[in-house]
Amino acid sequence: MGGDFGPRVIVPALVASLRKHSGVSALLFGDQQKLAAEISHCKDSSVLARIHVRHCEAVVSGDDKPSTVLRHKRDSTMGLAVKAVAEGDAKACISAGNTGALMALGLVFLKTLPGISRPAICTTFPTSQGRSYMLDLGANLECSPQQLHQFALLGSLTAQALDGIVEPTIRLVNVGEEAGKGGQSMAETAALLSGDPLLNYQGYVEGDGIFEGTTDVVVCDGFTGNVALKTSEGLATMINGMFKARLKGSWTARIGAIFMRSLLLGLKSRLDPALYNGAYLLGLNGVVVKSHGGASEKAFGHALDVAIEAAKHNLPEVLSPILQGKIDNGIK
Amino acid sequence: MGGDFGPRVIVPALVASLRKHSGVSALLFGDQQKLAAEISHCKDSSVLARIHVRHCEAVVSGDDKPSTVLRHKRDSTMGLAVKAVAEGDAKACISAGNTGALMALGLVFLKTLPGISRPAICTTFPTSQGRSYMLDLGANLECSPQQLHQFALLGSLTAQALDGIVEPTIRLVNVGEEAGKGGQSMAETAALLSGDPLLNYQGYVEGDGIFEGTTDVVVCDGFTGNVALKTSEGLATMINGMFKARLKGSWTARIGAIFMRSLLLGLKSRLDPALYNGAYLLGLNGVVVKSHGGASEKAFGHALDVAIEAAKHNLPEVLSPILQGKIDNGIK
Repeated sequence: MGGDFGPRVIVPALVASLRKHSGVSALLFGDQQKLAAEISHCKDSSVLARIHVRHCEAVVSGDDKPSTVLRHKRDSTMGLAVKAVAEGDAKACISAGNTGALMALGLVFLKTLPGISRPAICTTFPTSQGRSYMLDLGANLECSPQQLHQFALLGSLTAQALDGIVEPTIRLVNVGEEAGKGGQSMAETAALLSGDPLLNYQGYVEGDGIFEGTTDVVVCDGFTGNVALKTSEGLATMINGMFKARLKGSWTARIGAIFMRSLLLGLKSRLDPALYNGAYLLGLNGVVVKSHGGASEKAFGHALDVAIEAAKHNLPEVLSPILQGKIDNGIK
Repeated sequence: MGGDFGPRVIVPALVASLRKHSGVSALLFGDQQKLAAEISHCKDSSVLARIHVRHCEAVVSGDDKPSTVLRHKRDSTMGLAVKAVAEGDAKACISAGNTGALMALGLVFLKTLPGISRPAICTTFPTSQGRSYMLDLGANLECSPQQLHQFALLGSLTAQALDGIVEPTIRLVNVGEEAGKGGQSMAETAALLSGDPLLNYQGYVEGDGIFEGTTDVVVCDGFTGNVALKTSEGLATMINGMFKARLKGSWTARIGAIFMRSLLLGLKSRLDPALYNGAYLLGLNGVVVKSHGGASEKAFGHALDVAIEAAKHNLPEVLSPILQGKIDNGIK
């Protein structure tokens, strides 16, 4: 059991989640004694009956290289959790630990979906209209046009499956919207996407366009996606910090805040990064969700929701035959 | 005279700027009749005496390729404005037109500073502490370690010259802060920056760290910088839009906003994108500033401030001997 805070955050988040989702039960991999101590705070027998602890002492650390993990730590808490999905003991796995290790274990135990060479990290983010999917967020720093095409497919099929969007709009992140922007590799990717009958490709989107909500799926390489999303988080944090500091320094503003309470809470509930925690390792043949290492109880709770949502929709099982059909029919 | 709105926005912004900066005079390149019509609204003779119109009909359009501009449009309004800097008629040039064309004309007429192979687009952005410089923002989509090293030098020397920072802190944008993140090219760049005695290189910064204000100069390739900054603008616009929409729908919130007026105006004055309009084409041997094409009068006014600030600090003249000294002394 990983993350920066371990069972102290994860167990209370899990208990709250199990209370909300009555049909769900959990396998917890970690130190039995520590887990039992946290679980003992829960007095709800219907929840307790759905928590199953599997003792395991080996853990993947934040510094462990994926190759080291594959050689020596397949039976760590993280390894066993991924293996539980591969062996059908669990419908989804969630970790707040080392992303590279989680990806490597996912590739070894679960393999990828048909036609997918590498999984991508995918999350939703708030827009003016609702929410959009963005991938890759850092699993693949540089991507070939073929990989970006695969990511577009994964994102589109996921938005269909989870949000019921019939033909999700897809755009590629670029430095301009005009054809010809962004170089040769960008043009090749655009050609692959616009030529695919399964995709509703709408062209390029610039950074300032991704929050407009006119694009259901935003596709980019992992370096770009990681920087773009983290920059947004940083800006949101800065604005929040400036707001709080100025509020502290002004009693008239604090009075104003009482009148604005509902507006401010409404904005917070739309923009709070905790409510966007939980990213899919999309493309694996099983549901694997990565939480921020430093996630709060609320944030980890949201990552649990993400995992449960995908499991309920049988995400890989729904995607797999479509991707296989594409190969069988020789559709490019 | 370019930009989306032409003289209608640019002339009033210029008049306001000349009123503020009494020692500055302006050369305006464009259609004499149209410019005169706009200028006629100004009744301040001390300002009017400092506006000099040079009639020119050829304009660079947004679609013109840089190569076309260099072959056929060197005597366009944009070309003549850049040439005025090269010939010493002006200390700085500002355009709201086609960035690629402006860069090409700058390279032909002004050349680059010693040791600089290509200029970078550089702007300041607000942070928790004050402001930071970021480059490149889109002139060079992919960059070699050597180019990024040049950008770090340009950014550092500019922060010294304009903000009086003795040893500006410099970081490279990456997907993690640990050494080893981001691949081979990133590691090479980090080695060049940390080995340069002129630079106060502090390591990598992730997207969420750039707004913390602990980095005076943020260095990245043009694709990354463009997406990161535009994404931030998009998020700020979305938050602003959500705030206004919710305010409209609630009378209690509108009462609260009266009490919070000073706080909200204070936040706006720190975060308003118009106050960060105006990007340097840094590395040219002359001051060239690019305004957003769709800039408002206020935003274009800020871009004028940016150009005037650099001209007053003799930016290229200050940077040139330092960069030349580096070459002469064989410092890498």
